Amino acid sequence: MKQKKENSSNSRLKIIPLGGLEQIGMNITAFEYEDSIIVVDCGLAFPADDMLGIDLVIPDITYLKNNVERVKGFVITHGHEDHIGALPYILRELNAPVYATRLTMGIIENKLAEHGLLKNTKRKVVKFGQSINLGQFRVEFIKTNHSIVDAAALAIYSPAGTVVHTGDFKVDYTPVYGDAIDLQRFAEIGKKGVLALMCDSTNAERPGFTPSEKTVGRTLDTLFEEHKNTRIFVATFASNVDRVQQIINTAYKFGRKVCVEGRSMVNIIETARNLDCIKIPENTLVEIDQMKNYPDEQQVIITTGSQGENMAALSRMANGMHRKITIGVGDTVIFSSNPIPGNEKSVTKIINELLRKGADVVFQDAHVSGHACQEEIKLIYTLIHPKYAVPVHGEYKHLKAQAKIAESLGIDKDHIFILSSGDVLELDAQHARIGGKVPVGSILVDGLGVGDVGNVVLRDRQHLAEDGIMIVFMTLDRASGELVAGPDIVSRGFVYVRESDELIEEARSIVDDALQNCLGRGITDWGKLKSTTKDVLSDFVWKKTKRRPMILPIINEV
Amino acid sequence: MKQKKENSSNSRLKIIPLGGLEQIGMNITAFEYEDSIIVVDCGLAFPADDMLGIDLVIPDITYLKNNVERVKGFVITHGHEDHIGALPYILRELNAPVYATRLTMGIIENKLAEHGLLKNTKRKVVKFGQSINLGQFRVEFIKTNHSIVDAAALAIYSPAGTVVHTGDFKVDYTPVYGDAIDLQRFAEIGKKGVLALMCDSTNAERPGFTPSEKTVGRTLDTLFEEHKNTRIFVATFASNVDRVQQIINTAYKFGRKVCVEGRSMVNIIETARNLDCIKIPENTLVEIDQMKNYPDEQQVIITTGSQGENMAALSRMANGMHRKITIGVGDTVIFSSNPIPGNEKSVTKIINELLRKGADVVFQDAHVSGHACQEEIKLIYTLIHPKYAVPVHGEYKHLKAQAKIAESLGIDKDHIFILSSGDVLELDAQHARIGGKVPVGSILVDGLGVGDVGNVVLRDRQHLAEDGIMIVFMTLDRASGELVAGPDIVSRGFVYVRESDELIEEARSIVDDALQNCLGRGITDWGKLKSTTKDVLSDFVWKKTKRRPMILPIINEV
Repeated sequence: MKQKKENSSNSRLKIIPLGGLEQIGMNITAFEYEDSIIVVDCGLAFPADDMLGIDLVIPDITYLKNNVERVKGFVITHGHEDHIGALPYILRELNAPVYATRLTMGIIENKLAEHGLLKNTKRKVVKFGQSINLGQFRVEFIKTNHSIVDAAALAIYSPAGTVVHTGDFKVDYTPVYGDAIDLQRFAEIGKKGVLALMCDSTNAERPGFTPSEKTVGRTLDTLFEEHKNTRIFVATFASNVDRVQQIINTAYKFGRKVCVEGRSMVNIIETARNLDCIKIPENTLVEIDQMKNYPDEQQVIITTGSQGENMAALSRMANGMHRKITIGVGDTVIFSSNPIPGNEKSVTKIINELLRKGADVVFQDAHVSGHACQEEIKLIYTLIHPKYAVPVHGEYKHLKAQAKIAESLGIDKDHIFILSSGDVLELDAQHARIGGKVPVGSILVDGLGVGDVGNVVLRDRQHLAEDGIMIVFMTLDRASGELVAGPDIVSRGFVYVRESDELIEEARSIVDDALQNCLGRGITDWGKLKSTTKDVLSDFVWKKTKRRPMILPIINEV
Repeated sequence: MKQKKENSSNSRLKIIPLGGLEQIGMNITAFEYEDSIIVVDCGLAFPADDMLGIDLVIPDITYLKNNVERVKGFVITHGHEDHIGALPYILRELNAPVYATRLTMGIIENKLAEHGLLKNTKRKVVKFGQSINLGQFRVEFIKTNHSIVDAAALAIYSPAGTVVHTGDFKVDYTPVYGDAIDLQRFAEIGKKGVLALMCDSTNAERPGFTPSEKTVGRTLDTLFEEHKNTRIFVATFASNVDRVQQIINTAYKFGRKVCVEGRSMVNIIETARNLDCIKIPENTLVEIDQMKNYPDEQQVIITTGSQGENMAALSRMANGMHRKITIGVGDTVIFSSNPIPGNEKSVTKIINELLRKGADVVFQDAHVSGHACQEEIKLIYTLIHPKYAVPVHGEYKHLKAQAKIAESLGIDKDHIFILSSGDVLELDAQHARIGGKVPVGSILVDGLGVGDVGNVVLRDRQHLAEDGIMIVFMTLDRASGELVAGPDIVSRGFVYVRESDELIEEARSIVDDALQNCLGRGITDWGKLKSTTKDVLSDFVWKKTKRRPMILPIINEV
């Protein structure tokens, strides 16, 4: 009996989000059946506001490393950072083959090359409609639409049943490049019976349909018509190849030359061009140095920095810190983007800056989302008709909003699972339940360091950022136990004081008294001397200033 | 002739924004005519993201202090922090009478009492329609509508002409408390001829009209009807007395008891109640301790924290850190507020938290703005019919949007002035021009310190926050010039290292070599030893980690 039970437990399909489904970014999910594990996506997150000094956040893959012999490969839905960005870090620790569509693989290969990992990583480009066999799994790539070319949904076939994972998607009946989402295939798979649907929740709070990418092209035509006599800048996301295609199309229509500014955008456009994912008419793209040969009204500059990023091309061109181009009076800047939640302030800042410089700024209507709204989500649910719903992509409120949609379509409340990072969802044809938890976490990347900044360091940075630091240093005589130099105090980031100022002078004397008192009583234990210093100085500073700088006592012995 | 010219220059009206018109907050504007200066509003700003550890920002009033004998008083439009918040700091340096309407003065008096300034500050409560004489100026208070009761526009009469300053306003034909905006008086004043209009730009980008505050009451009725069986929390702005009135009205209608949570809200409601600005039916308001005597469906908790502020009542109730109330399954939380730009992320965070705890969250449609949209702005311009337009309140893009509206109404482009902080706008019946600049600036308030945190300290905090600090300490022998202890290295906020770790050990030995080299060559100058330490350690750490911690060498001498 025991044997049987174990077998049946082993024969369940397990779905384990490893990167925190609740956060934007770090999309990485393990699918497990018996001896086989596949990993869908491998994204990074950008640091939260309180992660001071951190560059990137990547998932902790301890669980995968502990099961390395079962890991068959990484299956990637599309080429955005929150789906591929952690690959160069993770592959270093866990070498497994990577499967992706053409442009997605092109972008991944750029990254791997930068990190010197290209040679050692097995890679396979998969076509839409094609399946790959990975142990007990078969994975089919299905065409979808998104704000990057070559995005795929996945049908993941296992002996326990089929799971459809949409990746990030929208329904675009008239996409700029390639075909519309393969709704027929969704229907076919749905007809055969799907155990679970994992569907993009990003826009689950928004009613209606997301408009086609093509509508942006029409808006751009209108805007170019309205600004015939000025130089035009268009800021958009580096990876939105279709958007760049449309800007180029409109520019060409109006007889303008185009240059692309911003390293990340240049790289992706180059990759897309090599793969024929973008078509640029001859003599349209010019180098930035040649732009000066054309009058303003024949120029278009496509640029990164639409989120107000300080170091991106747009900011530098607005602040006069760009080596070739300065935006000013008579220029038109079109934001073909929306602020990503959290970036509203920095976007407003760059808009204010551009207006102040005399530019005309257009920041409405030249963008559409890459994610499905409520009616599109309903369409996919209806075609797939899953037994279980596992909303993915988005913050908790978005997942919750999709759960409500699923309920409204007749899916049982207890057939809907909002998973937390590390939850093990166990599925078979009869049951679904959260059956445990695996270790998960975030690893902070700072400079060259991966994982050497943890909570202690972050807490220190927050403390330092808030109130600065006071350092008390002194030298003790080993033999006599007497103070032979100091205590002296220096501060950084506290308040503007010179060492001679009254506050510091008084603090010094209070610490001196306390130390002499200790030493006079024969206390020479460094721990005690340091804690005494901390206590008296902390009290004094709080009373005087209502601040709590970090206090760091330092002792030398001679 | 020279005499005459000077006279004519003296006889111009001067308008000088002192707090940065381009920033939200710090609304403070000097009006100057010959020997008379009046100051309209005296607001504070909340710190920008890069002002680490700062509590508040107040305006630098050096200019007013240099002209103290001419300053006749502060004239306040309404009781929001960005219009009154700096008064307790400024009055300490420049004692002048304060003029405001009833509730505005009530809120100001609370503040002054907290700062022990009530006795020494001359105050006068002004009624709508009433004028006060301040030197060469006469100032009339005109009824408007806004998201706080008793908001006023000002008609500022000077020998050079009349300026109308709207304060923050909207047009509400059906306000909750008191009368609609006094459009007749605006028309009368306009008819007599107005030199300049200074009009609220906050919503100048938004087409149409802002709905009446009363529409929120109807929404609340619907929401209470839909959530009859749950405890209801309503989060809103502490100072929106009308909103609290409507929540109470709806609660009363549905037979619910109300308690108010959050110190700032309790204070303002108390003040409003004393002034009869809010009417609370008997036995409706109960203390939080009594709430437990009523079933959930008879409770309403009105709370602060609608912006996701960490320490506000709503966050504490959601996180289980509130001493009396915990929000959880079965509770309904209504956000009767919109995120202030920049707060989107923290608002989303609290919404996610509440949903996770099992609460039902309503965060749409239960709020209207307190600021005029485009059609209302056009109405005021048309009634006032000013010669010059000086858009105020809002970021640069909002001022620019109002400038476009003014233009569309036929005001000459060169009759529209977007002023920067410190600009002196000189006006008479014939001319207007920016005639100079006075010193202005921001003073940072941190703990008890006003102005003792400046750019150096902030830069240090940013540096510490980004990469932490490494402290190198050593003791030199005065006589021999030899190193008798150290160099030793401690770090905080850098990476997680113990002092025995290889990186620190290697760093120590590199610094030691460099110092011994100096000392061996007879270099004992502390400046040189410190800069050598900085250089070699900084290079080493950058090469090893691609980080640039602050490096602080410390020397003791025995």
